[in-house]
Amino acid sequence: MTLYENLAIRLREHIELGFYKPGDKLPSVRQLAKEHGVSISTVQEAYRQLEQELLVEARPKSGYFVSAQKQDNLPSISRPPQRPLEVSQWEEVLNMLMIRSRTDAVQLQHAMPDMKAPTLKPLLKDLTKQDPEIGLGYSDIRGTEELRTQLCRLAVASGCQLHPDDLVITSGCQEALSVCLRAVTEPGDIIAIESPSFYGSMQAIKAANLKAMEIPTHPGTGISLEALELALDQWPIKAIFVTPTCNNPIGYTMPEDKKEQLYRLAQSYDITIIEDDIYGDISFQFPRPKTIKSFDTDGRVLLCSSFSKSIAPGMRVGWIAPGRYRDKVTHIKYVSSSMCPVMPQLAVAKFIRLGGYAKHIRQMRQNYEKQRDQLLKAIKTYFPKDTRVSFPDGSFILWVELNQHIDSMKLMKKCREHGVGFAPGPLFSATGKYRNCFRLNYSEQSSEKREWAIKSLGEVINTFQPQES
Amino acid sequence: MTLYENLAIRLREHIELGFYKPGDKLPSVRQLAKEHGVSISTVQEAYRQLEQELLVEARPKSGYFVSAQKQDNLPSISRPPQRPLEVSQWEEVLNMLMIRSRTDAVQLQHAMPDMKAPTLKPLLKDLTKQDPEIGLGYSDIRGTEELRTQLCRLAVASGCQLHPDDLVITSGCQEALSVCLRAVTEPGDIIAIESPSFYGSMQAIKAANLKAMEIPTHPGTGISLEALELALDQWPIKAIFVTPTCNNPIGYTMPEDKKEQLYRLAQSYDITIIEDDIYGDISFQFPRPKTIKSFDTDGRVLLCSSFSKSIAPGMRVGWIAPGRYRDKVTHIKYVSSSMCPVMPQLAVAKFIRLGGYAKHIRQMRQNYEKQRDQLLKAIKTYFPKDTRVSFPDGSFILWVELNQHIDSMKLMKKCREHGVGFAPGPLFSATGKYRNCFRLNYSEQSSEKREWAIKSLGEVINTFQPQES
Repeated sequence: MTLYENLAIRLREHIELGFYKPGDKLPSVRQLAKEHGVSISTVQEAYRQLEQELLVEARPKSGYFVSAQKQDNLPSISRPPQRPLEVSQWEEVLNMLMIRSRTDAVQLQHAMPDMKAPTLKPLLKDLTKQDPEIGLGYSDIRGTEELRTQLCRLAVASGCQLHPDDLVITSGCQEALSVCLRAVTEPGDIIAIESPSFYGSMQAIKAANLKAMEIPTHPGTGISLEALELALDQWPIKAIFVTPTCNNPIGYTMPEDKKEQLYRLAQSYDITIIEDDIYGDISFQFPRPKTIKSFDTDGRVLLCSSFSKSIAPGMRVGWIAPGRYRDKVTHIKYVSSSMCPVMPQLAVAKFIRLGGYAKHIRQMRQNYEKQRDQLLKAIKTYFPKDTRVSFPDGSFILWVELNQHIDSMKLMKKCREHGVGFAPGPLFSATGKYRNCFRLNYSEQSSEKREWAIKSLGEVINTFQPQES
Repeated sequence: MTLYENLAIRLREHIELGFYKPGDKLPSVRQLAKEHGVSISTVQEAYRQLEQELLVEARPKSGYFVSAQKQDNLPSISRPPQRPLEVSQWEEVLNMLMIRSRTDAVQLQHAMPDMKAPTLKPLLKDLTKQDPEIGLGYSDIRGTEELRTQLCRLAVASGCQLHPDDLVITSGCQEALSVCLRAVTEPGDIIAIESPSFYGSMQAIKAANLKAMEIPTHPGTGISLEALELALDQWPIKAIFVTPTCNNPIGYTMPEDKKEQLYRLAQSYDITIIEDDIYGDISFQFPRPKTIKSFDTDGRVLLCSSFSKSIAPGMRVGWIAPGRYRDKVTHIKYVSSSMCPVMPQLAVAKFIRLGGYAKHIRQMRQNYEKQRDQLLKAIKTYFPKDTRVSFPDGSFILWVELNQHIDSMKLMKKCREHGVGFAPGPLFSATGKYRNCFRLNYSEQSSEKREWAIKSLGEVINTFQPQES
C-alpha cells in the first residue's frame, strides 16, 4: 500500500466515524504533511482520491472540506479526454429530436417544464387578448423596451445591476448561446465546457467550427477549477462556456465562492465566460443563487437565458446580457434572424410586471422539489442498487449513472418499445462518452402513469444489468 | 473617334429613328462585323456601350434586342470594383435600424408591406382565436407539417415540385439566408452578389466571415452573366447569392431564360446558388415568374423566402428549400434558434389552405402596381430632371439615382428634420458605393401626407442639386 493510500484510509475513517462532520474544514495540506511526516504531494494525492470518492471537496483558497453528503450515491466526477476535440453526436441528437413517440408514451427525454400549471393562466389569457396588429411590423432589433426593463428588475435577484440598453432579446436561449459563441470566437478556437454538457450548446460549438475542451466536472459543485486552470495553461482557450446554476443535465449549482473564483480565473487568463442561466430562476434556493455575471466588473461575462424553462419553450423568448460584446452581439443577432416577434415579449413583460411570473416560479419551485424527491425515491425502489443519481438543487431534470456495462443507446431503443423515453448520455458529451448514463425529466406532477414509467424503466434496466458473480 | 464608337452612334441613330422598335432583335455580331467591315470585338464593344446606355439588352443564346423601354430614365448599370471585398457599412445599417423617427414622420425607408389591408383580417382573427396552449411546447425542428404542406402547394406557381420533407421553416427570410450561407461556405470564402444588394444579406456575409464579390447588375434584367462568368474564371467563388425576382432594392425580375442560363453557369462551375425569393409572390406578372430553383435538377439551389413581404414581417415565418444541403441546413437551423413558434405557422397554413392568402396577394399586387405608378409620377413631378429611377415589376420598393454630386447620407439627415425617411444607397453596397442613390417604399396607399412627403423630398433634393452652369 502506498503512503497516500494509507493516509486516505485514515482520513476516510475519521470522516466515517463522524470525527469530521459534513461541511467541516479538514486540516490543511501543510499541517497533515507535518503531522504524518509525509510530503506535500502525498497529502495532495490522498485528498485527490477522497475527492474522487466525493467524500471531500476542494474550495478555492479555503482548502478541503467534508462533502455536504446530500446524497451518498452521486454520479462519479467526469474524466473527459484532456484535449480539445471536435463535437460529434449530431446524428444522435437529431434522432432524438425527430422521434415520433407513440401518443401514449411517457416522454422523459425533453427538458420541458410543466405547462399545465394554473399559475400560467394569466399569461395565456393575455396572449389571446392582444391586438394582433401590434405584432405585424418590425420592432427594435434589441427587443421591446417593456421586456428589457422587466428583465433588469428580475436580474437584481441574481445579483446583477443591468440597464435595458445592456440587453438583447433573442429567439430563446439557443439563439442567445449561438450568437454569443459567434461573437467571441473565430473558427478553430477552443471552448472549455463542463462535462457532461447540454447537447444544444455543444452542437452550436460544432456549427461555429470550434473545438470543445471538456473539463472534469464534479456532480455536486460543478466544473473543476484545478483542471480548468491546467487546461488554460496548456491550451489557447478562447472562452469558457458554463451552466453553473441548476446545471443541465446534472442539476448542481456551483457554490458562490467557486463562481467568483471562476470569474477571477477568466480575468487572469483574459478570456471570456459565456454563462447559461436558463434554469436559474427555478433554483430551489431562496433567494436564488447569484450568477457569475454578478461578479463581472469588466464586461467579460455574456449571460444567456430565456423563459423556456420557467414558462414554456414555445414562447421563444430569450435574452443576452452581452457586457463589452454588445455591438458584436447586436450585429450577429440582427443577421441571425432580424428582430424577434413582439407579442410574446409584451405578454411576458406584463406577466412579470403584474407579479404573475414571481407567483408562477414560486409554485414551480415547490412542485419541482417535491417531484425530484418522488423521482429519487422511485429510482431507489426500482433501479439496480449500483445506480448513481444526481441531486439537483433546482430545475426539473436529473442525471442517472448506471452500471458501466450498460449501453444507454441500446437501452433507449428497448424502452421506446415500452413507451418510455429518456435522453441518453452520449448526447451530452462532445465525443459520445457517458454511454451508461441518461437524463430524466420530472417536470410533470406525479401520477400513476409516471410511477409505472419509472418502474418499467427499472425493469428494462434490470434485464441489461450484468449478473453478479 | 474609335471604330466601335462610330458603330455605336450609327446603331443608336437607327434605334432612335425607329428603324428598330423596342423589343426587336438586332443584327447578330457576325452579321454586323461583315456588313461594316470591322472585327467581331469592335461590334461587341459597340453593343456593350449601347447596353450600358440601356438602349439594347443581351439575351443569352438569342443575341441583342432593343430594350423594351418601359422607362427612359432607368438607373445606370452598376460598376462595382471587380474583386472580392469585406463588407463594411454595419454602422450605417444599425443607425438606420435604430432611428427613432418622429411619430408623425413618413417612413419610406423600411421594406414593410401594407399591413392595414382588409384581406389580412381572416389571418389576424385566427391568430387570436387559437388555443395558446398549442404553442407552448417544442415542435418539429423543421417546422409544422401543416405549413410545409401548404408551402409545397404554393411552390407549384413558381415552377417547383417540392415535398414537405424538402422544407425547413425559419424565423423569417433573414434566418433562412444566414443559415444557408453558413451551410454552404467556410470562413474566408467568396460569395458573388448583385450590386446593389439587400443590406441584411450583405451583413450576414460579413458575420459569416465571407468576402463579397459585387457583380455589375442591369437595372432591368439583373446580374450580368458575362461579368459573373469573368469573375468565376478569375476567383474561387463558392456560391452566388441573388434576388432575381422583384429584386431588392431595384425591383427588376430577371428574364426566365437568363435565370436558366445562370443555373447552367453555376452547374458548369460546380457552385451553389442561394436564391432569395421573398418578393416573388407579389410580382405584378401573372402567373408569377419562375424561380431559379424551378430549373434545379441536382439540388444546388437553396431557395429562401418568407411571408414578411406578402403578409407581415412580424409573423417571422420564413423557409428554406435547401436541396442537397438539407442535413447541413437542418443542423445549422437547430443550433441557430432551435424550433420556430408554432402558432404563427398554423395561422398562416390555414390562411393559405382556405384561400385567404391567394386573395390577399391578388389584391396587394393590384394596389402595389397602382402605387408604383403614382410614386413614379410624383418623382417625375417633384424631383430634378436628371433623376433616374427603377421600374419595379413587383414588390413595393424602388431605387432612385440622383445627380452624382448628391450625397444621400447628408440628404437623409436633412430629410429626417423634415419628417421623411428613406434608405440611403451606401447600405446596399459592400463598400459604401451608391452615395447618390436611395430606396423608397410605396407599400402604403396614396394619401395627401405621402404626396406631401415626396414633394418635400424633392424640395430638399433641389437644395442639394448642383447649379447648372
